[in-house]
Amino acid sequence: MPEMNTDFRHLLASDNASGVHPEVMAKLAEINRGHAPGYGADALTEAALERFAQLFGERSETLLLFNGTGANVLALKGMLRSHESVLCSELAHLLVDECGAPEHFVGCKLTPVPAPNGKLTRDAIEARLAAGHSGGVHRNRPRVLSLSQATERGTLYSLGELRAFGELARKQGLLVHLDGARIANAAVALDASFAELVEWVDVLSFGGTKNGLMMAEALVILNPDLQQAYPYLRKQGMQLASKHRYLAAQFLAYFDNQLWRRNAANANAMARRLGQGLAAIDGVMLSEPVDVNLVFAQLPNAWLEDIQRLTPCLALRGETRTEVRLVTSFDTSPADIDAFVDAVARLAAER
Amino acid sequence: MPEMNTDFRHLLASDNASGVHPEVMAKLAEINRGHAPGYGADALTEAALERFAQLFGERSETLLLFNGTGANVLALKGMLRSHESVLCSELAHLLVDECGAPEHFVGCKLTPVPAPNGKLTRDAIEARLAAGHSGGVHRNRPRVLSLSQATERGTLYSLGELRAFGELARKQGLLVHLDGARIANAAVALDASFAELVEWVDVLSFGGTKNGLMMAEALVILNPDLQQAYPYLRKQGMQLASKHRYLAAQFLAYFDNQLWRRNAANANAMARRLGQGLAAIDGVMLSEPVDVNLVFAQLPNAWLEDIQRLTPCLALRGETRTEVRLVTSFDTSPADIDAFVDAVARLAAER
Amino acid sequence: MPEMNTDFRHLLASDNASGVHPEVMAKLAEINRGHAPGYGADALTEAALERFAQLFGERSETLLLFNGTGANVLALKGMLRSHESVLCSELAHLLVDECGAPEHFVGCKLTPVPAPNGKLTRDAIEARLAAGHSGGVHRNRPRVLSLSQATERGTLYSLGELRAFGELARKQGLLVHLDGARIANAAVALDASFAELVEWVDVLSFGGTKNGLMMAEALVILNPDLQQAYPYLRKQGMQLASKHRYLAAQFLAYFDNQLWRRNAANANAMARRLGQGLAAIDGVMLSEPVDVNLVFAQLPNAWLEDIQRLTPCLALRGETRTEVRLVTSFDTSPADIDAFVDAVARLAAER
Amino acid sequence: MPEMNTDFRHLLASDNASGVHPEVMAKLAEINRGHAPGYGADALTEAALERFAQLFGERSETLLLFNGTGANVLALKGMLRSHESVLCSELAHLLVDECGAPEHFVGCKLTPVPAPNGKLTRDAIEARLAAGHSGGVHRNRPRVLSLSQATERGTLYSLGELRAFGELARKQGLLVHLDGARIANAAVALDASFAELVEWVDVLSFGGTKNGLMMAEALVILNPDLQQAYPYLRKQGMQLASKHRYLAAQFLAYFDNQLWRRNAANANAMARRLGQGLAAIDGVMLSEPVDVNLVFAQLPNAWLEDIQRLTPCLALRGETRTEVRLVTSFDTSPADIDAFVDAVARLAAER
Repeated sequence: MPEMNTDFRHLLASDNASGVHPEVMAKLAEINRGHAPGYGADALTEAALERFAQLFGERSETLLLFNGTGANVLALKGMLRSHESVLCSELAHLLVDECGAPEHFVGCKLTPVPAPNGKLTRDAIEARLAAGHSGGVHRNRPRVLSLSQATERGTLYSLGELRAFGELARKQGLLVHLDGARIANAAVALDASFAELVEWVDVLSFGGTKNGLMMAEALVILNPDLQQAYPYLRKQGMQLASKHRYLAAQFLAYFDNQLWRRNAANANAMARRLGQGLAAIDGVMLSEPVDVNLVFAQLPNAWLEDIQRLTPCLALRGETRTEVRLVTSFDTSPADIDAFVDAVARLAAER
Repeated sequence: MPEMNTDFRHLLASDNASGVHPEVMAKLAEINRGHAPGYGADALTEAALERFAQLFGERSETLLLFNGTGANVLALKGMLRSHESVLCSELAHLLVDECGAPEHFVGCKLTPVPAPNGKLTRDAIEARLAAGHSGGVHRNRPRVLSLSQATERGTLYSLGELRAFGELARKQGLLVHLDGARIANAAVALDASFAELVEWVDVLSFGGTKNGLMMAEALVILNPDLQQAYPYLRKQGMQLASKHRYLAAQFLAYFDNQLWRRNAANANAMARRLGQGLAAIDGVMLSEPVDVNLVFAQLPNAWLEDIQRLTPCLALRGETRTEVRLVTSFDTSPADIDAFVDAVARLAAER
Repeated sequence: MPEMNTDFRHLLASDNASGVHPEVMAKLAEINRGHAPGYGADALTEAALERFAQLFGERSETLLLFNGTGANVLALKGMLRSHESVLCSELAHLLVDECGAPEHFVGCKLTPVPAPNGKLTRDAIEARLAAGHSGGVHRNRPRVLSLSQATERGTLYSLGELRAFGELARKQGLLVHLDGARIANAAVALDASFAELVEWVDVLSFGGTKNGLMMAEALVILNPDLQQAYPYLRKQGMQLASKHRYLAAQFLAYFDNQLWRRNAANANAMARRLGQGLAAIDGVMLSEPVDVNLVFAQLPNAWLEDIQRLTPCLALRGETRTEVRLVTSFDTSPADIDAFVDAVARLAAER
Repeated sequence: MPEMNTDFRHLLASDNASGVHPEVMAKLAEINRGHAPGYGADALTEAALERFAQLFGERSETLLLFNGTGANVLALKGMLRSHESVLCSELAHLLVDECGAPEHFVGCKLTPVPAPNGKLTRDAIEARLAAGHSGGVHRNRPRVLSLSQATERGTLYSLGELRAFGELARKQGLLVHLDGARIANAAVALDASFAELVEWVDVLSFGGTKNGLMMAEALVILNPDLQQAYPYLRKQGMQLASKHRYLAAQFLAYFDNQLWRRNAANANAMARRLGQGLAAIDGVMLSEPVDVNLVFAQLPNAWLEDIQRLTPCLALRGETRTEVRLVTSFDTSPADIDAFVDAVARLAAER
């Protein structure tokens, strides 16, 4: 593991607050020589795409992108037209936190579906489908089911649940999008291969930045019928890198020696340790099971200021209690977690 | 200068074919420690933006972006509404080579204006303005004048020409956008400061990637009335980096010890050397003056295959002669140029 | 009143199911002579716009349009940019029944706000505003408050409520849009002038088609700062009629002899009569007060088929009871209503 | 024929300046009774669509719309995606006079192709195709060939030319759109059926308003693969009329007793008479053959003011001569034409 932070400043703020894994940085330096064709026509890109093909099958096609907003928005842009709609969790990142980029770029409607613990349910989806179709041409036609794996609440769909959603989607004429901003964490937690996670998926947003890359995400188009348009859409969507080999190199490092797995495994383990530590403190309650690297903990409002001093974090303030979201990263250490838990325990004791 | 390539493979294909300057790579490695707030709220970003403010004035505001398409499209998105139009050169990159991203994302119309040597003329602009306004509500209302500096033909507007366009724009109620994908090359060639180049400009696309960065461009909003919307548009436009400090670091290296100037000066000098070398060869003619790092040379069609073997390049084939575009970079060496010129001279001699 | 229908077929289906008031048809025939400039440059248009100016003030500006979707979408298009958002009732027509036209054409986000009885509340708006602003650039910036008057549930905002919303909007930096698809019904019910209804409004969608016109709506832009763009947006929004005088003539007839008021008054009165009649039937319950020309009635599921045979209507089926929406029109007669109520009463008696 | 104008005011300004044919107005009055389902679910609509099916074949599908901008824009919206492009004449109405509606609503690029006499040529199309494809993902992918019949210059493609373009399009993987704003005039002039004119067409904008209707156009989707989306796109595109039967009635009158043919035949004949009359005047020269109801005549600049007093018209002023566009209508009479020609002849004689 890389050397750790000496204090908690931003330690648990987000997996985006972490840096670049040293092996990724080393790879970037290593490949930084000579000239190469731009826009993805180089040998490093070819090698990186070959790795994706090994993971996701020869019929898949992968495009490398700059960021997660780009991945989600382009995924949808290639899956549906403006008169169609996307069913997604009411907490879905693409609904809530993309500044309306999907609506703007695709021109479609996003239909929020209630999602306890961040997970969609069959009943809720079917209710929305019925409502959508009942309006005839006055309502956007449901076309895509978007799932997040792991979810925005740090929970997971089991392989069985994914299969059930996949079967429902096929029956209903829906395509399936998977927002995999934290798919590595999901794969590790479920002990599943990427291929198993996407068996029923048409297009995958494959995250990298949150798990130790600098700025690199991928779009994996598993449904061959959809593949032709995406290269154009990437360019039109402002996501085509000219010095493309520096995206490719990040993914080469990511797949070498299973860096992705080591990073995600550490983050997940540290979140479990954090969850267990916090749950043992009087006055703290976890809102969700800790499946991946997200911990949602409720604590008295009065503690918030001190917590935020330890590590800034997303906080949802209620009448008497606040829910905080704490996120572990590839570089979080047991010592970091223990020190943070100790600090919170002291907070609890002082009150 | 960094060590040079041992062959011409892709040497003159594009400034995008070059790599990352070692000082930039070193900076990325140097700052890769600990956690920091995401999305631009970190200290490195603050430092980088302060450098932009020093260059462009305290009233300017700068946003860091991933790529040049993003810069051009977001620039326009913040400057006009869908019922308005952009006047630009018929060769403008944003018109010809963005896969329709401006039309798609802004929803506006781009109006091509004839541009001999890549440069707009007052007469041609005024003719288009008249045509645009004559259609009333049936035509998009002209609102933005977009100039490229250096132009897509490697030519330059003098400071006097820029002033004249700026005055014309004010008089006509137009805002001015400057596509500065190669603004560093322009500044060096004109021996002008960035501030002098943008005296009449409202929004600048400030290039970095073509001049030694890995993937980093900036949008400099000089007109304070336009500034409020851009941070939202960057997010909605899929150009907001989560690990933003790695964009900032590239620009910190770029401004340290005037790396931008050293890089551009080398590229410009090598282009001049290339131009002079080629012009002396029987059967070769330059199409444009060599003001920056682009050389447009016409040669017999029969040579093209051999030239492309030396270095792939953009080529426009005519009846008997082909025009090739050759681009020098921060890392092109005199030896590279001389070897290439020698090879072309041998080609000429063999025929 | 014109002669009435002899049966209930579509009688109460919608105010869109009614025809064109004979005075409107007569006006169209009357003005159908000779040639006139297209696109609104004719004398009839001038006269119609003068009538709007008298009603809404000399600083207002009015554009005539084809339909209500056009009015709502263009209204928003001129009020906000794509990175901003519209707060509206979760039942708002523009949210639910425009096939995503606002999202597509404006590119913005619509934020649904809970609305008991179809009416927004100050608390709910403030909660959404707080949530919207809390996300920084990751969420669309709230910019427009859209109210429907009458609401989609047939309820009304009092003048005092409108004032309170207007003051809230000003304080929060929001513009106010009023969807007045049934504003004539509202004006009659509240015994208020149009000017009083829009005192705090920036842009009004002024309905005509539901109240006896053939196909004609208007956009009244009350806020002078917003006026310049709309004529272009109307053209770009596919809502500019070439033979524009035939839109103008409809409104001339509408304002002559207060046809709008007579039509709306009849529709409102018939809805009250219908509501009272239905409420007196055992097994029927009204869901909402009957303020304008909409009656929402709950009745046993078993009755629905028979009701739909009398008049097709929107119906929302629950476990045991169905809510139907019945709509009266300018040409609904007391005999129509009484016959329908009798028929329902017989249905009730038979069970 | 209906009674004619007693003066020339706006007589030849545009076919949009004419009114509604009395038979159309009579039909609107005749069907104005009772209630009917909205949005096209009524019996009159069914009857009108049946007439279209008879003309264009059972596999075609027709949607009624408000105006020509709507027809052209929706046609394209259903034929291509934003990363694709439309090849059209540089004079095409959808390129020049729709205030950028296609770019805004479809998000695509329109590629102007040189068109002498308003007519595209095979060579020019092939040159643009080559340029479009040469840019790879940096350029929109050519997807639709849009032809106007009659053209904006009043000229016609022969059936043989249409076939040649159709074959070219198939070979190149292009769909064919026909802007038939004046297709009735074309059918009459070529003595061809509508079906013959669209043998190679995928989607037709079928004009009505310019040929005696009040406000009614149609979209005829001949390619069954494209049909599913259009009903949604019409709604989202703000072109779905609620009291739809009043669009249907206009087309019923249009097809009854071949009104469309009588109207177009009169307009064409009057244009021929006008062209012959003007061509005989010293100092006047026709720019184009008079195939339909448009006459383009060049005359001395000094005459323009007087001409515009007779009838306002589009005029393109050159150094010494001005080209005016004169348009005849269903209600133009021989006496009108003769009086106008006499007036111009007097103008000529006076100089």
